[in-house]
Amino acid sequence: MRFTAETTSDGVVERDFTLGDVTGVLWAPASGPDHAPLVLMGHGGGLHKKTPGLAARARHLATTCGYTVAAIDAPGHGDRPRTAEDERARAELRQAMAAGDPIGPVSARYGASLAKQAVPEWRATLDALQDLPEIGADAPVAYGGGITLGTAIGIPLTAADPRITAAIFGGGFVVYDALLDAARRVTVPVLFMLQWDDEHVDRQAALGLFDAIGSKEKTMHANLGGHGGAPAFEDPAPFLTRHLGTAGAPA
Amino acid sequence: MRFTAETTSDGVVERDFTLGDVTGVLWAPASGPDHAPLVLMGHGGGLHKKTPGLAARARHLATTCGYTVAAIDAPGHGDRPRTAEDERARAELRQAMAAGDPIGPVSARYGASLAKQAVPEWRATLDALQDLPEIGADAPVAYGGGITLGTAIGIPLTAADPRITAAIFGGGFVVYDALLDAARRVTVPVLFMLQWDDEHVDRQAALGLFDAIGSKEKTMHANLGGHGGAPAFEDPAPFLTRHLGTAGAPA
Repeated sequence: MRFTAETTSDGVVERDFTLGDVTGVLWAPASGPDHAPLVLMGHGGGLHKKTPGLAARARHLATTCGYTVAAIDAPGHGDRPRTAEDERARAELRQAMAAGDPIGPVSARYGASLAKQAVPEWRATLDALQDLPEIGADAPVAYGGGITLGTAIGIPLTAADPRITAAIFGGGFVVYDALLDAARRVTVPVLFMLQWDDEHVDRQAALGLFDAIGSKEKTMHANLGGHGGAPAFEDPAPFLTRHLGTAGAPA
Repeated sequence: MRFTAETTSDGVVERDFTLGDVTGVLWAPASGPDHAPLVLMGHGGGLHKKTPGLAARARHLATTCGYTVAAIDAPGHGDRPRTAEDERARAELRQAMAAGDPIGPVSARYGASLAKQAVPEWRATLDALQDLPEIGADAPVAYGGGITLGTAIGIPLTAADPRITAAIFGGGFVVYDALLDAARRVTVPVLFMLQWDDEHVDRQAALGLFDAIGSKEKTMHANLGGHGGAPAFEDPAPFLTRHLGTAGAPA
């Protein structure tokens, strides 16, 4: 893991990093105890690791809970090169959305392919983060959200990596069989965000995805509104502090 | 409104009252500003105004938000006399539950009949509460919950009374046409609590009830588990303070 840039503003240090081909960013309070809980953030399809909504949530968690927050660009997103397959899938998605056609088939195929690459990338990133003395192996870890693509990656990642002890997912993604299979293998407490009027997702399929999650504790927060995202009053901090504690005060 | 008993414990004053045939209770902080937000609490079917879960939530809202909280016994419940119809409906409900039969038909008929009586009782209670100098007509008012029967009464009450500016409902009730009609007339912000595995309620019908609510802002919190009620971490305070403010600090 190589740090390539560092800036501090409003009490939060933001450090860009690379790990092999993967580009990422780490937010942390400018001062605070080491080994604070670590939250992994996913971004939506077509977006990137510093998308404004994601960065605002990360800074909020760093300042109010003392958390360290990490985000990486998904394959073919942000600062990472795009393959011919990326360009083709993006063009098909744009075309379907412009024509008002269902984005399901291409979205499912592309999402599954990205998740397959992204899960080992996230796990290697987590290895490297835990090697940093200020994080370490004993900091509790959560997957802290990400609608759409962030969920298509987050569900198989949470199912695969036992270091993740709580997770936030969003309903805004096309549901396909491999995603349902992974959801059944998730056993940690889950907060599931659903936009009730998502124009790109079948509501019953999203409810079915929530239903499939194997956890004994899972909560769905459904809000009116479309694909754009949850209302500002939806704060991930109460769920995360309940399961991770805060910096210096374990759950 | 006649106060019949008063006790103070843990910083909360609890006052029993009667208003005509209706028996009720009022919780308020032992000290705090007048005209604090007022929360009306409904109890579940077969329970009463001081059911432990309800009383604990009321005391929590009084101590953490400075709210005044009122609850009244539904017709045929708590300290109120039971009619022959009450006894018959209760016997039928007990029998259906013991036999594992659907409680829908009797529950819908009895619930609709109780709601018809309870809505004007609540509105008269609210008139009398607003005549108290410590509450007054300018205290913001919310319907603060109540699963099952508390929702069957709370939805038509909230639809009928413009003084109620935010409401919490629960999904744990049989859905019938008059309830859906009333839900469509609700326009204030709503928090809707759903027990995902409620053994007495059809999940799709409960989701349909949430869908029918006419409000522009509505949120559903769905949690794993049966008819018994939401997990302890579900705190009504964030929703209520967002819409009512707290005592001395308007929203």
